[in-house]
Amino acid sequence: MNKLTLLTLAGSLAVATPALAQQTEKLDQAALAKIKDEGLNRSKVMETAFYLTDVCGPRLANSEGLQRANEWTKKQLTSWGLVKANVEPWGTFGRGWDIEKSYVAMTAPYYHTLIGAPKAWTPSTNGTLKKQVIVVKAATEADLDKYKGQLRDKIALLEVPNPPKPSFEPDAKRYTTEELQKMTEKPAAPAANPTSDADRMATFRARAALRTKLTEMLQAEGAAAVLSTRGGSDGTFFTSNGAPYAADAKPVLPELEMAPEDQLRLIRLSEAGIPVEIELETRTRFQTQDLKGYNVVAEIPGTDKKLKSEVVMLGGHLDSWHAATGATDNAAGCAIMMEAVRIIKATGVQPRRTIRIALWGEEEQGLFGSRNYVKNHFADPATMKLLPEHEKLAAYFNLDNGAGKIRGIYAQGNEAVMPIFQQWLQPFGDLGATTVSPRNTGGTDHLSFDAVGLPGFQFIQDPLDYGTRTHHTNMDTYERLPADDLKQASVLVASFVYQAAMRDQKLPRKPLPAAKPEAQRL
Amino acid sequence: MNKLTLLTLAGSLAVATPALAQQTEKLDQAALAKIKDEGLNRSKVMETAFYLTDVCGPRLANSEGLQRANEWTKKQLTSWGLVKANVEPWGTFGRGWDIEKSYVAMTAPYYHTLIGAPKAWTPSTNGTLKKQVIVVKAATEADLDKYKGQLRDKIALLEVPNPPKPSFEPDAKRYTTEELQKMTEKPAAPAANPTSDADRMATFRARAALRTKLTEMLQAEGAAAVLSTRGGSDGTFFTSNGAPYAADAKPVLPELEMAPEDQLRLIRLSEAGIPVEIELETRTRFQTQDLKGYNVVAEIPGTDKKLKSEVVMLGGHLDSWHAATGATDNAAGCAIMMEAVRIIKATGVQPRRTIRIALWGEEEQGLFGSRNYVKNHFADPATMKLLPEHEKLAAYFNLDNGAGKIRGIYAQGNEAVMPIFQQWLQPFGDLGATTVSPRNTGGTDHLSFDAVGLPGFQFIQDPLDYGTRTHHTNMDTYERLPADDLKQASVLVASFVYQAAMRDQKLPRKPLPAAKPEAQRL
Repeated sequence: MNKLTLLTLAGSLAVATPALAQQTEKLDQAALAKIKDEGLNRSKVMETAFYLTDVCGPRLANSEGLQRANEWTKKQLTSWGLVKANVEPWGTFGRGWDIEKSYVAMTAPYYHTLIGAPKAWTPSTNGTLKKQVIVVKAATEADLDKYKGQLRDKIALLEVPNPPKPSFEPDAKRYTTEELQKMTEKPAAPAANPTSDADRMATFRARAALRTKLTEMLQAEGAAAVLSTRGGSDGTFFTSNGAPYAADAKPVLPELEMAPEDQLRLIRLSEAGIPVEIELETRTRFQTQDLKGYNVVAEIPGTDKKLKSEVVMLGGHLDSWHAATGATDNAAGCAIMMEAVRIIKATGVQPRRTIRIALWGEEEQGLFGSRNYVKNHFADPATMKLLPEHEKLAAYFNLDNGAGKIRGIYAQGNEAVMPIFQQWLQPFGDLGATTVSPRNTGGTDHLSFDAVGLPGFQFIQDPLDYGTRTHHTNMDTYERLPADDLKQASVLVASFVYQAAMRDQKLPRKPLPAAKPEAQRL
Repeated sequence: MNKLTLLTLAGSLAVATPALAQQTEKLDQAALAKIKDEGLNRSKVMETAFYLTDVCGPRLANSEGLQRANEWTKKQLTSWGLVKANVEPWGTFGRGWDIEKSYVAMTAPYYHTLIGAPKAWTPSTNGTLKKQVIVVKAATEADLDKYKGQLRDKIALLEVPNPPKPSFEPDAKRYTTEELQKMTEKPAAPAANPTSDADRMATFRARAALRTKLTEMLQAEGAAAVLSTRGGSDGTFFTSNGAPYAADAKPVLPELEMAPEDQLRLIRLSEAGIPVEIELETRTRFQTQDLKGYNVVAEIPGTDKKLKSEVVMLGGHLDSWHAATGATDNAAGCAIMMEAVRIIKATGVQPRRTIRIALWGEEEQGLFGSRNYVKNHFADPATMKLLPEHEKLAAYFNLDNGAGKIRGIYAQGNEAVMPIFQQWLQPFGDLGATTVSPRNTGGTDHLSFDAVGLPGFQFIQDPLDYGTRTHHTNMDTYERLPADDLKQASVLVASFVYQAAMRDQKLPRKPLPAAKPEAQRL
């Protein structure tokens, strides 16, 4: 439906039946124009993004960076006039971990500084190590045997998946009209192929089991440290956990994730029989005083006597990985959500429902912040016993697919909500946001709401270089945030939140799901 | 001219006049097939490239890495049966310089390792520094004044040109048929625009003068060190000289070239009034015992009594920049040239003329190795007094445009050579090499020959990611060398060198240039 059709329809339906009237959303064009003007012309989203990334720094789960971000966002939201700003514990997470020093270089056959970072939650080296390397390659558990007796006091070099090469594809892209059109269709039912699914799962499990055995052997045999890589290129490398964050986790070896080019050079030299010596110093700091995880929440109180007890929520996760400042994952989402509430406050529009922003902790470790918030406030998906607040949530909007502008929204299988979103998008076709997809999208915090039958949604964003360059890498930095994209997204989110806060009814919900005992959930 | 036309022509010209016969090149298809077979099926080019890059390491002018490469290539060429292999001094270059340690990190407002490397020929820090930063931005000399009294004991952060952002263009490309076709045309005479040329030159000079003033001020005011960047993205950064290599050069401050993302974070934090502390240690080693520069040369002796005193040369430069292993600039060219002579030896073909490979030193500092070799052996362009060897050089072939396969050759304004090259390329259309361009191409060692009227040529190579990712960066590594491209190029070079060694006449020359006193040359 285009804009003209909608207006005609709206006009002709002024005295329509309630059922039909329900299908036409009231669009307060004056309020929406104010939102657009504030968000495009007096934006603070890049300033917010700067504070979240550069000033707070990397924001690993329960790290000092995340604590800085919790405190700063609480203060900042309060300074914009939000109320009840709170760093709200969601339960027990595990140990905090921060890097105090990281230095790794090749010192023989000649000197070369290497690009790398400690894997999260790995321990310090015992001062500066200077050690020979050994390449460890194992496709099966039996392959490990040949390294027995070879590893003592050595730095183990693990293999590099997908070695880099000249790239003929651009890092960044935007969705084409055709791709967006495709998203408006329900996905074809996947061809049932239980065998290959089972095969894949078996392969995955076998690989994980092998890596566990390898880790145990390296430790048992007295290796000094491990250098590994999960991929990347050009000085970019991927980062991940190197150890459990549980307070009582068993100690592991110091392990660094390396730029593939550096790791491959070490491997090639070593395999050619040339002795390679590594100089390595990491100092990491564990924090076990406070094992709790936190979410930051703050509100714009509703103004309608009847509806202000109802809540429209919006959020993104504040935690990140540790080797960069988590700009696209997910300072962008948080900055946009914060900007959306700032815009709503600054325009002076009067939302009928209460608007609550939530900046989630510990998403990267398993959506912990949002899952536990939902459990504490709305329902536990394991029992589906509903808490009183469950009835009061009008909608939850999430943003966590990088820094690209909003091209539409996933209805997450909620067909009743689609015509509403289609109408809400009408005023923003000129900003490139047009698409309502019936599809599900996963991987982030709206799932926590969806899991208990609450209307939780994630927007469709232009991919840019999220999947190729920034997602979980050491290059997820402020440079990757195009200001125009963040401004556009802020306006779109503010408008959706505002509409959800003004609408006579809460957003339609899908049927309540059945209780899913812990073991059955992802 | 396509292959069929050529064959028809060759057949019909069996009893043609000498003048016309001259236009038809003899192609020894059996020998060329052997060259192709050896180069494509029993290639050692990647092994050679591995030794030049990973094993020898970075090969800065007069560095230990370059010394290793000189010794290794001499030994390797000898092992393949070449004779008179020699590390031949070309004259005085300047100081050797190597990195012994390089570590730089941000230690406040939080810890973060930074990606960077010392600029070439910069001195060590005095142990580990821990200093505050100051951002220094100056568009004019007057702007420098405001920093007076502010710099003592500070680490100066210089501006970042072209900050990185998501990239919508691929790093690597190959030439299209249309682009190659365009190269066969003479370039249109450039629109004369002396004003804008003069403006550009003036801007360039003003910028260089400003940087000199800035450097002097930083030193005079007692700054502790400098962090700068010349560009790059994703963990890739460009490298260059930070100081003169002359033995009597004035001391400068320690200076590192940084990944732009890291430098920009430091600048943004500092400009926001947040104190930034840097921990920095560099140890660099100067070598002043041997200030000479060297080229490596070796020969396959000619077999024809009359022609063996004549020489076909081929070469590439062995020196590189220091922050990577100079894989595409120019280990690739050297490995291909070495492979070409290996192929010729391995096939047992009997070149009539002597073939001489030269691996040049100190190209990156001004084509010094080749310019001085030409001056010592052939002629000094300042006087154009020809030495006896000038008459004996049949051709010089150069390769120094990265790791892409050969698509043709630049005739360097030598029109008489074009039909010869066109016929030499005929057997290699299936390998993608078809184009003879009348144009000049610059920037590397064939210019040294061209400058004294000798027929020096550079091949046309697919650009790949040479201009975007590897040229003078810290990511010029072995990964950037596609084996198929290097094999193809080796076959093409071997065939050209072989043809030039077999031909009845030396390659036609352009008229001798006039003597150009030093001051008039680039």
